[in-house]
Amino acid sequence: MSVLQLDRYDIDISPIGSAHLRWLAAQNFAGIAVLTDNNTAQYCLPLLQEQLAPFHPHYITVSAGEKHKTLETCQHIWAQLFEAGAGRNWCMLNLGGGVIGDMGGFCAGTFKRGMDFIQIPTTLLSQVDASVGGKLGIDFYGVKNSIGLFRDPRAVWADARFFETLSARELRSGFAEIIKHALIADAAQWQELQQITDLENIDWSEWVARSVAIKQQIVQEDPHEKGIRKALNFGHTIGHAIESYFLETASPLLHGEAIAAGMICEAWLSAQQLGLSQQELTTITDYFLTIYGHQTIPEDIDDLLLSIMRQDKKNEDARINFSLIPTAGKVAVNQTATAEEIVGSLSYYRKLR
Amino acid sequence: MSVLQLDRYDIDISPIGSAHLRWLAAQNFAGIAVLTDNNTAQYCLPLLQEQLAPFHPHYITVSAGEKHKTLETCQHIWAQLFEAGAGRNWCMLNLGGGVIGDMGGFCAGTFKRGMDFIQIPTTLLSQVDASVGGKLGIDFYGVKNSIGLFRDPRAVWADARFFETLSARELRSGFAEIIKHALIADAAQWQELQQITDLENIDWSEWVARSVAIKQQIVQEDPHEKGIRKALNFGHTIGHAIESYFLETASPLLHGEAIAAGMICEAWLSAQQLGLSQQELTTITDYFLTIYGHQTIPEDIDDLLLSIMRQDKKNEDARINFSLIPTAGKVAVNQTATAEEIVGSLSYYRKLR
Repeated sequence: MSVLQLDRYDIDISPIGSAHLRWLAAQNFAGIAVLTDNNTAQYCLPLLQEQLAPFHPHYITVSAGEKHKTLETCQHIWAQLFEAGAGRNWCMLNLGGGVIGDMGGFCAGTFKRGMDFIQIPTTLLSQVDASVGGKLGIDFYGVKNSIGLFRDPRAVWADARFFETLSARELRSGFAEIIKHALIADAAQWQELQQITDLENIDWSEWVARSVAIKQQIVQEDPHEKGIRKALNFGHTIGHAIESYFLETASPLLHGEAIAAGMICEAWLSAQQLGLSQQELTTITDYFLTIYGHQTIPEDIDDLLLSIMRQDKKNEDARINFSLIPTAGKVAVNQTATAEEIVGSLSYYRKLR
Repeated sequence: MSVLQLDRYDIDISPIGSAHLRWLAAQNFAGIAVLTDNNTAQYCLPLLQEQLAPFHPHYITVSAGEKHKTLETCQHIWAQLFEAGAGRNWCMLNLGGGVIGDMGGFCAGTFKRGMDFIQIPTTLLSQVDASVGGKLGIDFYGVKNSIGLFRDPRAVWADARFFETLSARELRSGFAEIIKHALIADAAQWQELQQITDLENIDWSEWVARSVAIKQQIVQEDPHEKGIRKALNFGHTIGHAIESYFLETASPLLHGEAIAAGMICEAWLSAQQLGLSQQELTTITDYFLTIYGHQTIPEDIDDLLLSIMRQDKKNEDARINFSLIPTAGKVAVNQTATAEEIVGSLSYYRKLR
């Protein structure tokens, strides 16, 4: 069991058990709502339902998937809260992956100007990425997470038992954020990670704890993403664009798969701009290819990818903003690259196949 | 000119002029959006348009009125911001009454997880009430302000010249909040206010400044309305229900008109429960009747009013919560009253005609 005590809440990385429930009872919430999607209702909720029964929770279920991370779904959630008679002194438990955490947190954070919520992330990606940082939101106008707010949960319960419900591909996707955290902030962790070439039989709780600790340190310095927090965007400027492109194709990529390709591209930019050594670039590239293989990015979509990058909310005034690594374990935020350089990085990636 | 310096922003109570614009220029926002409704676009914007021209603002106009304080209107505002290419480093100027301030602040506070905004309240009510406190939101599920958040503006510009566009009835409505602030927190101000029986030729800037100072002190102690901030609800539990009832009739009341009736009822409750003297009750009652006259509240709507009060978001667990005054200038929060007592207060009010 590992508890990361943050300023304002704890991230408890352990199987959810009686200690959690005692803590919950001690908060004296006037009521409990539990938000799930149809997948987590089926596969994850059974692990908790009996323990939660004494709280007589009001269950709210929404359709699974990023395409339901909309204002329309929020309206359903808010209406359910009203129908349950929920007040500001209730607490909502968000049981699911990133979509449920982001959207459930947004709904709770705006219901009657803010009720408490507890995040119970059920995927490796959401345990590593969404447990810390307080970023909440939904998709709007075709832009991911474009309406939202920053607000901390009352607690995060990260239980690795939920990973048993994940496919190998989903686990691997979440692992990309663990690699990212090491690459931007911890050279020793990066060395150690490279020993992992098979994602079975890993003690995920330990890796979640170590990786979340890195993110927490960064977020704490810059909760509202004015500066250093942008470090976490390494791989995401290009990766996000790749993810958006593939979302519209017959074979969408998972977030981590797209981000892995993005990190290769942005490592190449790091070599061009910040002197990341050719040897490190090769090591990083090879490791990602070992774990994630190679995606075929069509030759003729560079302009499309560039326009998606310009839309991204972190890009002020149409310049394209990057966080790059001068060496593994270090990061520099607020870097920019020209369209030509970005296209160069995509060419580098394409040639790796 | 009067500037109230708060912890995190200033409320500038003076005609908007070159000092304001210099300050705005110094913030180096990447862009400026100006939100108006069709009334303030016509009557208030001309006062500013020339001064704002150098900032090349993007103007967004919505339909006036509480019935447009909805998620649907927010979607229009957010979409306009996207179309303008707005980023998190833009600033939105909300030019209008309470609806524009609450809804514009909510839209800004959630756009890309929060852009800055400046409140430019154009009514007496919004200058006194909404300038301070950071409460933002929209109406949902038939409940006022039921979706929203707390977030401070970057500045508030309270310019009394806008009052020239208000009807006498609207000015009088805003005045009710000035009376309320005095009644809950400043006996001397309450004495002084009683000299005012004619609302013409008042130095409103001075009264706005004094009244906002009271609210500010209360909000500062309790920004998220966990305790003492509820003091500001004096008159609002019953007044809000009366306002909601009349909203559905052919002759809706303005907020302050309903709240004035609510304060008479809740002064009666204060006499029953907290020993507000009969003499003070009479003085308070008479003053409100002098300024606001008497509203005819039908005999058969008590159950309806009670059910509206139970819906109110401040009422936890279906108990009905009041802030009452043991004497003018003092307040006690977290008081409750039975249905019978509430009906008694309405009977007291009805008999005053």
